[in-house]
Amino acid sequence: MAYQLFYWPTIQGRGEFVRLALEAAGAPYVDVARGPDEQRQGVPAMMRWLTDTRVLHPPFAPPFLQDGEIVVAQTAAILQYLAPPLKLVGRSEQARVWTQQIQLTIADMVNEAHDTHHPVGAGLVYEDQKPEALRRAREFCSARLPKFLSWFETILVRNPAGQRHLVGGRLSYADLSLFQLIEGLEYAFPKACAAAIGATPNVRALHARVAALPKVAAYLGSERRIPFNEQGIFRRYPELDIV
Amino acid sequence: MAYQLFYWPTIQGRGEFVRLALEAAGAPYVDVARGPDEQRQGVPAMMRWLTDTRVLHPPFAPPFLQDGEIVVAQTAAILQYLAPPLKLVGRSEQARVWTQQIQLTIADMVNEAHDTHHPVGAGLVYEDQKPEALRRAREFCSARLPKFLSWFETILVRNPAGQRHLVGGRLSYADLSLFQLIEGLEYAFPKACAAAIGATPNVRALHARVAALPKVAAYLGSERRIPFNEQGIFRRYPELDIV
Repeated sequence: MAYQLFYWPTIQGRGEFVRLALEAAGAPYVDVARGPDEQRQGVPAMMRWLTDTRVLHPPFAPPFLQDGEIVVAQTAAILQYLAPPLKLVGRSEQARVWTQQIQLTIADMVNEAHDTHHPVGAGLVYEDQKPEALRRAREFCSARLPKFLSWFETILVRNPAGQRHLVGGRLSYADLSLFQLIEGLEYAFPKACAAAIGATPNVRALHARVAALPKVAAYLGSERRIPFNEQGIFRRYPELDIV
Repeated sequence: MAYQLFYWPTIQGRGEFVRLALEAAGAPYVDVARGPDEQRQGVPAMMRWLTDTRVLHPPFAPPFLQDGEIVVAQTAAILQYLAPPLKLVGRSEQARVWTQQIQLTIADMVNEAHDTHHPVGAGLVYEDQKPEALRRAREFCSARLPKFLSWFETILVRNPAGQRHLVGGRLSYADLSLFQLIEGLEYAFPKACAAAIGATPNVRALHARVAALPKVAAYLGSERRIPFNEQGIFRRYPELDIV
């Protein structure tokens, strides 16, 4: 049976990390909130999981995934759940723990990228927190972005199985998530990202390699890939792209 | 062999979620960075893991845990790794996934609580971002704090095994982490937390019940429990406790 993915239908957002894993593995899935209301899909179908008092394990927020009896939310937990059947993680406990640790570090950077345009909180729009955003973005571009990319470069360089993947010798969900993170950074911070990624050639090469994977390339060229926009996590506000 | 926990020696911080799990389970561990330098402990022993180029899986940041050949960082990943041997998670896949999902939601709230005093970024001290902090704290106290507590209350109320635990009928690491989260909120936001927790009686009862567990109570009364202070995640700045 196809996986049921629930996420906001007009942004890549955190749901994109799950979409990419499903697409890269060629797994059947329904992107429920993007479907038609009259087929019991659309945003109302997603909201039912958040509001119906009969749901035993209500997600705090999208994305979440339904797989038969299992409903799982939190991007990193969804990926960890999906990875074994999708063959996107190694079999050893050490490989699984390390992959998840990298994923959670990617999630931390995603949060920090988001907070550049929402430093005061998600309840206000960007236009109501522009001075604060400018300060936060300055710190992000000058300190955090290079620091995170440097960590990813380090662990690629130290991978005993080679520099092509973050964990071991084959593709994992962490590779896909790092690809998406770089995609987002290049969109939101083209100048700052270009400046930082010059020092991390293995990160740049991994990003290019993932983009060229046949299933990923087909997905990126399809209408299923929602373009970046200024409602998602990665937003292009030129004033926040500080070099 | 005792687990080796590495975390900053003068704050509870994110390491406290791991300390609590180890203490509640009565597991042997060494809080390495709090030990004496001359016994190859202390902060230098921790920093070696972050800087030694021979480390294959370098943590991005503390806390991290060493268990023989395994080194794992990221609080939620550490807890997930420790939980089966410490008997702090159910055996079914559904229980494990749900427990981790709750833990990651707790981690999200911990991040948001931290960012009330560091909305512009961790590279600046609080004193350099007080106006921004005031705006962020207002949103946190009025919207986010009640929203998160209400979600924890909901999942306690809906637990088919009863309202004493977040997952199933026995203690899990998510219960311990929710206890610690409430501890921190009560310290940092005594007025706002009191206002919100009145509407979530099962959360309050769980907090009290965890505090009374013999091993937890012994730990909380010991010198191993570092008092809250204004260098950690939860800081008592009265101006940010907004009702």
